Amino acid sequence: MGEFELIGRYFRSTALEGAGPTEQVTLGIGDDAAMIAPAAEKQLVVSTDSLVLGTHFPPDYVPSNIAYRALAAAVSDLAAMGARPLGFTLALTLPEVDEIWLQSFAEGLAEAARDHRISLIGGDTTKGPLNINVTVFGEVRPRNVVRRSDAQPGDLLCVGGPLGDGGGGLAVALAAALPADLDDAARDYLLQRFWRPMAQCDLGLELAGVASAGLDISDGLLADARHLAEASGLALHIRVADLPCSQALRFWPAEQRKEWMLGAGDDYVLLFTLPVASIRSLEIWKSQGFDVTVVGEAVVGRGIWLDEGQGLEEVARPAGYQHFQGNNNV
Amino acid sequence: MGEFELIGRYFRSTALEGAGPTEQVTLGIGDDAAMIAPAAEKQLVVSTDSLVLGTHFPPDYVPSNIAYRALAAAVSDLAAMGARPLGFTLALTLPEVDEIWLQSFAEGLAEAARDHRISLIGGDTTKGPLNINVTVFGEVRPRNVVRRSDAQPGDLLCVGGPLGDGGGGLAVALAAALPADLDDAARDYLLQRFWRPMAQCDLGLELAGVASAGLDISDGLLADARHLAEASGLALHIRVADLPCSQALRFWPAEQRKEWMLGAGDDYVLLFTLPVASIRSLEIWKSQGFDVTVVGEAVVGRGIWLDEGQGLEEVARPAGYQHFQGNNNV
Repeated sequence: MGEFELIGRYFRSTALEGAGPTEQVTLGIGDDAAMIAPAAEKQLVVSTDSLVLGTHFPPDYVPSNIAYRALAAAVSDLAAMGARPLGFTLALTLPEVDEIWLQSFAEGLAEAARDHRISLIGGDTTKGPLNINVTVFGEVRPRNVVRRSDAQPGDLLCVGGPLGDGGGGLAVALAAALPADLDDAARDYLLQRFWRPMAQCDLGLELAGVASAGLDISDGLLADARHLAEASGLALHIRVADLPCSQALRFWPAEQRKEWMLGAGDDYVLLFTLPVASIRSLEIWKSQGFDVTVVGEAVVGRGIWLDEGQGLEEVARPAGYQHFQGNNNV
Repeated sequence: MGEFELIGRYFRSTALEGAGPTEQVTLGIGDDAAMIAPAAEKQLVVSTDSLVLGTHFPPDYVPSNIAYRALAAAVSDLAAMGARPLGFTLALTLPEVDEIWLQSFAEGLAEAARDHRISLIGGDTTKGPLNINVTVFGEVRPRNVVRRSDAQPGDLLCVGGPLGDGGGGLAVALAAALPADLDDAARDYLLQRFWRPMAQCDLGLELAGVASAGLDISDGLLADARHLAEASGLALHIRVADLPCSQALRFWPAEQRKEWMLGAGDDYVLLFTLPVASIRSLEIWKSQGFDVTVVGEAVVGRGIWLDEGQGLEEVARPAGYQHFQGNNNV
């Protein structure tokens, strides 16, 4: 079976094309290229992410989960910019044509596309070791875009949801040593958070034009906070006691929770700075159901500083900082 | 060394960011996503291509050549749509950080970017088996876009350059059984065509709004003609004697040349249909130095028909048509 039939059979049939706004996608799958146009006064936001099977995935993964996670992780970068999702391309490298695998993969992809209101606009299939590349497109008014570089001293540092579920979810997915009393609800919640993360697009749209800076937590709070601090040229203070975590994570000891909240990554919640003048927005967002929490502030200086109740302590810049590792982007 | 440093050190330093039009790329590398905006009244054209090392590459390939070819092949899809290149993202999966490899790769990429006037706007690096994904962005006026589906019976079928060099180039690159009298000039020409193909963007811009349909020849003339014929719902007649081939290819026997011209792929020249009313454009393009040739015509019917001087014969639809093969897209 061929490249075009693959795309046709598995991806078109799942109504992936029409999952997102259709006005902006003016030419979809089937030609040499797709056409896409942001709405008037908006610009296109673009991000690309590859997912490679490695140590981060249990060997008995379900293809639909991999697909969901790959798309959600990519869309999370749009959310971080305050952009509305429009479309995505999929470049799929597969060792062989396995129709059962493809059917499952396409289902998970279609589900993620519907959940994130984004359309498949083009693709490419190649034979080789499994590699899933997703490039996402969104739109934003240029003046509202949320960059990493515009935080100001005095801004509040906030997160858009619970931290550490990426770490806890991985532990459950890998069936690592789990707490003896871990209940099914917690297990299911963490598996869902790991395999079916939901990019915070709605929150991102709220942040557009309001937050001074932001990104999504994919590398872990400390690493991503450092990205923001360095891009904005300031220091960030983080109050560990204020870091939000899910009920499910409370089955683990406090030290493990803290490790995951600070460093595990794959949480796909937004980390952003808010001018104090916009503090009222926080209450509005909470009343709208967004799970936003103030966890620290931006100050003049450099580095990431943790407040664990006994004064501030600077977090050492890891020697292998941003090390070239298994799955930077999933 | 980390993901961001990789991108920073090897790709930023080669001035890749500014190789294309800068007005449309409003936010480049370094944030969660890039921003790009087509000019007024234009839309964005998007295409994605992955390159995997396989049987099509000699084991002693030069990384700069792989990079050049990956980008040129992707840009060729923009040329086929009549779009002007703007920017591209690179998702690079690498088994290890090899600085010499990366340096060479970045140089080839920068060269291809300059030659095609396109800017690197974002990227992603992941650890895993080598996989090079390029997603390209161009702009076009929607009414001028060259699709596959709008050819009309009576239109002339044309190609934008010599055919078969992809096949001959591969033979030289693999040092397969070569003609004993093959001279250095022919060898160099074919290696250049194989490793450093130049996407026909300038021709594509001329075709925009003039050609009725078009695509780039990446799968081989017969396969790509079939794509066009099926998308447009008509038959294509091809006169074999009129197929253009390079001087270099004449070192091979006629049968081998014909095989490559019809089927080898990787030529990255444009295949397009032209309404007879626009026949004068052909002379203008030739006078501008474009190597365009009429090789047949579109007619009512179905299928691809070859005229080898003894009447028309239909080309059988290959059983493994568009077979899932090693390198569909390079």
